[in-house]
Amino acid sequence: MQTWLTSLKTNTPQEGFELAIKLSQKGVEYTQPSEAIRKKLRPVYSRNAATLIFASEVIAINFQTVARANNYWRGSSQSASTR
Amino acid sequence: MQTWLTSLKTNTPQEGFELAIKLSQKGVEYTQPSEAIRKKLRPVYSRNAATLIFASEVIAINFQTVARANNYWRGSSQSASTR
Amino acid sequence: MQTWLTSLKTNTPQEGFELAIKLSQKGVEYTQPSEAIRKKLRPVYSRNAATLIFASEVIAINFQTVARANNYWRGSSQSASTR
Amino acid sequence: MQTWLTSLKTNTPQEGFELAIKLSQKGVEYTQPSEAIRKKLRPVYSRNAATLIFASEVIAINFQTVARANNYWRGSSQSASTR
Amino acid sequence: MQTWLTSLKTNTPQEGFELAIKLSQKGVEYTQPSEAIRKKLRPVYSRNAATLIFASEVIAINFQTVARANNYWRGSSQSASTR
Amino acid sequence: MQTWLTSLKTNTPQEGFELAIKLSQKGVEYTQPSEAIRKKLRPVYSRNAATLIFASEVIAINFQTVARANNYWRGSSQSASTR
Repeated sequence: MQTWLTSLKTNTPQEGFELAIKLSQKGVEYTQPSEAIRKKLRPVYSRNAATLIFASEVIAINFQTVARANNYWRGSSQSASTR
Repeated sequence: MQTWLTSLKTNTPQEGFELAIKLSQKGVEYTQPSEAIRKKLRPVYSRNAATLIFASEVIAINFQTVARANNYWRGSSQSASTR
Repeated sequence: MQTWLTSLKTNTPQEGFELAIKLSQKGVEYTQPSEAIRKKLRPVYSRNAATLIFASEVIAINFQTVARANNYWRGSSQSASTR
Repeated sequence: MQTWLTSLKTNTPQEGFELAIKLSQKGVEYTQPSEAIRKKLRPVYSRNAATLIFASEVIAINFQTVARANNYWRGSSQSASTR
Repeated sequence: MQTWLTSLKTNTPQEGFELAIKLSQKGVEYTQPSEAIRKKLRPVYSRNAATLIFASEVIAINFQTVARANNYWRGSSQSASTR
Repeated sequence: MQTWLTSLKTNTPQEGFELAIKLSQKGVEYTQPSEAIRKKLRPVYSRNAATLIFASEVIAINFQTVARANNYWRGSSQSASTR
């Protein structure tokens, strides 16, 4: 497989979350390399409540890794509380 | 997608828990971007005992990340034991 | 939602475990705010072996967070080995 | 509920593993306080391959907590490699 | 139960992985002490794709614990990249 | 079993992710040593949306371990944000 991951560093938490999503998708891709089969499965899991939650769980686990790699973006000055 | 996460910092543990919920929902949203489909699924998983517990698990995993990012709000003076 | 979590600190590991249970229940509550629906679901998951184990898993994950927030109550002098 | 957990410290890793089992069981007990119902469910999950593996997963998560609370029993001199 | 775990230390990562497998099996054993019943279940879960993956998940969680207890075997000089 | 894991160190995050995949597969292999049976199961789980997501979850858990063992490859200079 070609290079797709050179660093776990991201500029913002949101980019880190999106990297976590990418890692989660890659875990699926390595297990099922056929894009044709994956495309058939996508409408299945994306319209099923349980599998959507499981997908969110994998993202959460990968986000733990990415967040720690970025020291939780502690240098950023804004607070999420003000959202 | 527009900016929705600029920091993992929150003022209180409760706000941190609510941020964990938001992260869990975002994991679902990125996987199923259609709001129409998600709205149809909501009554399914929110009335099913197993999927509710799975949803709580994703929140718990994200709360681990948020809690650590906030150093467990250790500066706060009240004890949860008095609740 | 009103204030329900002001600190992750507890006096004892057992209180910490009970806080982990509360966090797990809150994850369900935020996802399904209707108390009426939750009450109907309770006999379902509390009499099903698999969902009871899943509930215990969510508690275990939240207990990791609470235990770390309390530095594992290392100041306490008794050993669990004598239980 | 009466006192059942005063410390996460144990003398050996094995006692720590057994404490992790106790924590996992307590997660079930708090969710289903009726001993009569739990007794009926035990033969169900203990004879089902999937639920046994899920039970082992909860134990593994709690063992992470207990192991860290004991600093992985690093003072112990024997190596598990010689088992 | 007799002594089966005296340390989390192992000489190599592979021995650590094998210890993680042992911990995962012990979680099942404590929950279902009857060897006769476990032997009947083995062909069930070992020929089912989902339960095999769940078993691998429990091993992964226990491996986190063992790896950390061994400080990730950082003293070892070889790189896995050369495999 | 012969030697298959001598270190958790990898040169890049991508190699670390691939090591996490290997660890996840090994967890399955140790549980079901028969290659013939595993080959029969592969088309089952690799064409099922839920089991693919579970496989990605095991990889995510193992990647946490590998990433930490490599101190998140913090020495690397590129940012994933530029992907």
